[in-house]
Amino acid sequence: MKTVKIVIAGPRGRMGQEAVKMVLETETFELVGVIDHRDHWRTVGEMDGLPASDAPVYTDLAFCLEKEAPDVLIDLTTPESGMFHTKTAIHYGVRPVVGTTGFSKEDLTELEELCSDREIGCIIAPNFAVGAILMMKFSQMAARYFTDVEIIELHHDRKLDAPSGTAVKTAEMISAVREPKKQGHQDEKETIPGARGADFDGMHIHSVRLPGLVAHQQVMFGSDGQSLTVRHDSYNRASFMSGVKLAVDTVMKMDSFVYGLENIIE
Amino acid sequence: MKTVKIVIAGPRGRMGQEAVKMVLETETFELVGVIDHRDHWRTVGEMDGLPASDAPVYTDLAFCLEKEAPDVLIDLTTPESGMFHTKTAIHYGVRPVVGTTGFSKEDLTELEELCSDREIGCIIAPNFAVGAILMMKFSQMAARYFTDVEIIELHHDRKLDAPSGTAVKTAEMISAVREPKKQGHQDEKETIPGARGADFDGMHIHSVRLPGLVAHQQVMFGSDGQSLTVRHDSYNRASFMSGVKLAVDTVMKMDSFVYGLENIIE
Amino acid sequence: MKTVKIVIAGPRGRMGQEAVKMVLETETFELVGVIDHRDHWRTVGEMDGLPASDAPVYTDLAFCLEKEAPDVLIDLTTPESGMFHTKTAIHYGVRPVVGTTGFSKEDLTELEELCSDREIGCIIAPNFAVGAILMMKFSQMAARYFTDVEIIELHHDRKLDAPSGTAVKTAEMISAVREPKKQGHQDEKETIPGARGADFDGMHIHSVRLPGLVAHQQVMFGSDGQSLTVRHDSYNRASFMSGVKLAVDTVMKMDSFVYGLENIIE
Amino acid sequence: MKTVKIVIAGPRGRMGQEAVKMVLETETFELVGVIDHRDHWRTVGEMDGLPASDAPVYTDLAFCLEKEAPDVLIDLTTPESGMFHTKTAIHYGVRPVVGTTGFSKEDLTELEELCSDREIGCIIAPNFAVGAILMMKFSQMAARYFTDVEIIELHHDRKLDAPSGTAVKTAEMISAVREPKKQGHQDEKETIPGARGADFDGMHIHSVRLPGLVAHQQVMFGSDGQSLTVRHDSYNRASFMSGVKLAVDTVMKMDSFVYGLENIIE
Repeated sequence: MKTVKIVIAGPRGRMGQEAVKMVLETETFELVGVIDHRDHWRTVGEMDGLPASDAPVYTDLAFCLEKEAPDVLIDLTTPESGMFHTKTAIHYGVRPVVGTTGFSKEDLTELEELCSDREIGCIIAPNFAVGAILMMKFSQMAARYFTDVEIIELHHDRKLDAPSGTAVKTAEMISAVREPKKQGHQDEKETIPGARGADFDGMHIHSVRLPGLVAHQQVMFGSDGQSLTVRHDSYNRASFMSGVKLAVDTVMKMDSFVYGLENIIE
Repeated sequence: MKTVKIVIAGPRGRMGQEAVKMVLETETFELVGVIDHRDHWRTVGEMDGLPASDAPVYTDLAFCLEKEAPDVLIDLTTPESGMFHTKTAIHYGVRPVVGTTGFSKEDLTELEELCSDREIGCIIAPNFAVGAILMMKFSQMAARYFTDVEIIELHHDRKLDAPSGTAVKTAEMISAVREPKKQGHQDEKETIPGARGADFDGMHIHSVRLPGLVAHQQVMFGSDGQSLTVRHDSYNRASFMSGVKLAVDTVMKMDSFVYGLENIIE
Repeated sequence: MKTVKIVIAGPRGRMGQEAVKMVLETETFELVGVIDHRDHWRTVGEMDGLPASDAPVYTDLAFCLEKEAPDVLIDLTTPESGMFHTKTAIHYGVRPVVGTTGFSKEDLTELEELCSDREIGCIIAPNFAVGAILMMKFSQMAARYFTDVEIIELHHDRKLDAPSGTAVKTAEMISAVREPKKQGHQDEKETIPGARGADFDGMHIHSVRLPGLVAHQQVMFGSDGQSLTVRHDSYNRASFMSGVKLAVDTVMKMDSFVYGLENIIE
Repeated sequence: MKTVKIVIAGPRGRMGQEAVKMVLETETFELVGVIDHRDHWRTVGEMDGLPASDAPVYTDLAFCLEKEAPDVLIDLTTPESGMFHTKTAIHYGVRPVVGTTGFSKEDLTELEELCSDREIGCIIAPNFAVGAILMMKFSQMAARYFTDVEIIELHHDRKLDAPSGTAVKTAEMISAVREPKKQGHQDEKETIPGARGADFDGMHIHSVRLPGLVAHQQVMFGSDGQSLTVRHDSYNRASFMSGVKLAVDTVMKMDSFVYGLENIIE
């Protein structure tokens, strides 16, 4: 298989560090440079917390793309830099793989048009955890055959919001395909308020918070005499890298724009 | 081992039917009679829904106890009949094993004194599910070492109350040993009300209701880097019979009164 | 929605009894007759163990189909009767829904041709548990993104074979899409033989047997920092009925032959 | 509560680093020194990978104990150094808390006698994970009431041995209290060898290995109509620290020798 030449923007961040490691450890990938706001002309290996590598550090993306002619740009920076980087990459014929939740609808439309004009692949993904995306996809599929479902999400106790973003996203995806149904006994009664969890279009979401836990979600479907459960456990940030890798491999075969990893997973 | 001669009161009820079956299938037990409000002098085998057995049916307990001289009376009737039966059995020197939630404090005190006078064993138990009792006992023990705990109970969707009685009982047992603690992030926020479940002395209880489920409970403890979970799944009424059997075996070695199966389980 | 008129063959069997109950309880279904080897001209309500219903009992299928002109035949008999019934139904333009594992390849080919000639829908399914089929389907989908998987199946301790048929079927479906991989550490060592379970094309299957359990299976996928789990719990035979119902609804819209419920589930 | 003055031997190791962090973060503990083979007279904060602290580094334990007069020595070194350190500490009237699996029977007997002579508390523990110890303890208790049990242990796929040491230890503890029983159907048959797992005195152990997993164990008990499950999930090394903390608090109230954390947990 031909080696994919890759530039990473944002190599100091938590996701960026994992991405550098992943690219270096993947046989069919080659790290040809990173984009950082300083340390121009030094190497990745000379940056704090990054593994040994001679790949050069650039402060200017256009200059880097001209010089290194990579196949793919992995961007793990901020929405502002990310939008600028993505447009620059498309301009240079380099396929972008971008991890961000911050792009506006207008941004996405603009990028879709740019990709269409240039007939170039581009993947923007708010979530790279393949397992979490499959969990949501399976839940949506199961909801066509099971009218009753409850979501239990479990996180460490430093999390502020309940339910989690993933739980709400899952509930939205289920709601999109199922007929609304108020679940549970029609006369059910909470003897302590909150026992039945959060109500989302008639289904229930329960948020467990305990020290020691990381990020877990269990979607349970029930019908007469059976239950079907889909569960995702995320133990650390490395779990995102299989998604980034999949995106890189997939973007190389694409000539158009895709938003969301769920759209490249079958 | 010497055979234990047993009379069962309430053989037509759901628990009673299981008890008849259990006694007939246990080698060291012998069914010498049942107490019913009708069918005097017929046999168990002639009663609807009961397995083949020549054990006679009595309508009067005193008469039955005199005639059959059993070792143990298993009573699975109502609180009213139960109280009367229990006193009669103690009077005749027959050890009672009684399944009921309905005895008053005065009833229990009276029975305790009767047993003490006669130096005879007697077990009154609101719950015969050994697995559920162990789950509660383990939860209480774990609470001494883990300050954070959440309870998830899962039942079929025809259940009216949330949380379940067992969940509340478990929470009470935990509260009895732990220092009160408001769990979760101090600034945590429910973006949909109820997400964090019911609050019981700072710990949280979540009630899942789905068709297909039977009766399940999971108690989760968390601390830095680990979680400890105790779970009980009850699939059908047969699960109570190991507790009844244990109570019969234990009451034969006792000469005093015990309330609650947890007090004969070490 | 138009009512679907249904005849059930094999109403005395365990599945058959559940099917009678399900059809009677479904608003859009109507039970117009059952096929049994005796009791001709009596009614379903007069048969032992079946719920109240005036639907007549027939001993001859052709006669019944002519007289009642049903839309669908649900056949839950033996492979021999089943094959004969299915052909008869197709001949009369009645759509068959057949639960059997016993048809030969030749049988299936013959039925497929008959359906094609008559342009009539027909569903033959060895397994009607929708949840189990979704579990297998999801497992196959996940195997495209996760190279490592282990299957844990859990059954009551009266089961003779290990692993279960469903576990082997799941492993086959996974093998069909994944590149063969010998999982675990390359130097791993069993200090007690069998610890690592059964090896199936490099993946591992573990069979748990315990009294009290019914039929459960958990398929676990792992990659860096995450795991994805799909689990099916079957508590009783009622779990098959949602699949039979789905098959009846689907066969009404079909004009060809389908083998396996997985092929009508999307 | 009086502050406990603590010296840690082996602060550079994985466990040692966590212990330094834990002691610094615990209000009632004070780190008064560490023992290392170099860096004499520097401070903990000057050592690589350790948090800011002015506690001095000593290369000689006797010298350190005389100078700092701590209450407790936490030793997380090797068996050789550990034995020497423990004896030295007892000599100076400092209570040792030692994490090691390597002491011989003779070592343990010698230490027990030393402690008895000096009437001083000392805890030697091969495992500080309180959750894992409770799991084993609960399993042993449950085995008195459930004759059937299976153990499923799940680890990352870089683990060499199957089953895990904890699984074997759990099985031994269960065997110590239950009557031997060959579980499963008496005629059960493995259609693929190994499906039923490892046999240990008639109970079965299953070892799951998947990338992404850390260290998990589930002990399942079953009887008619119910199952009882105890599970421990260890996500990282921090999970050991609650055990070390518990040992420090407990050793302060003891005047004799204890081997194994299970003996200070009720």
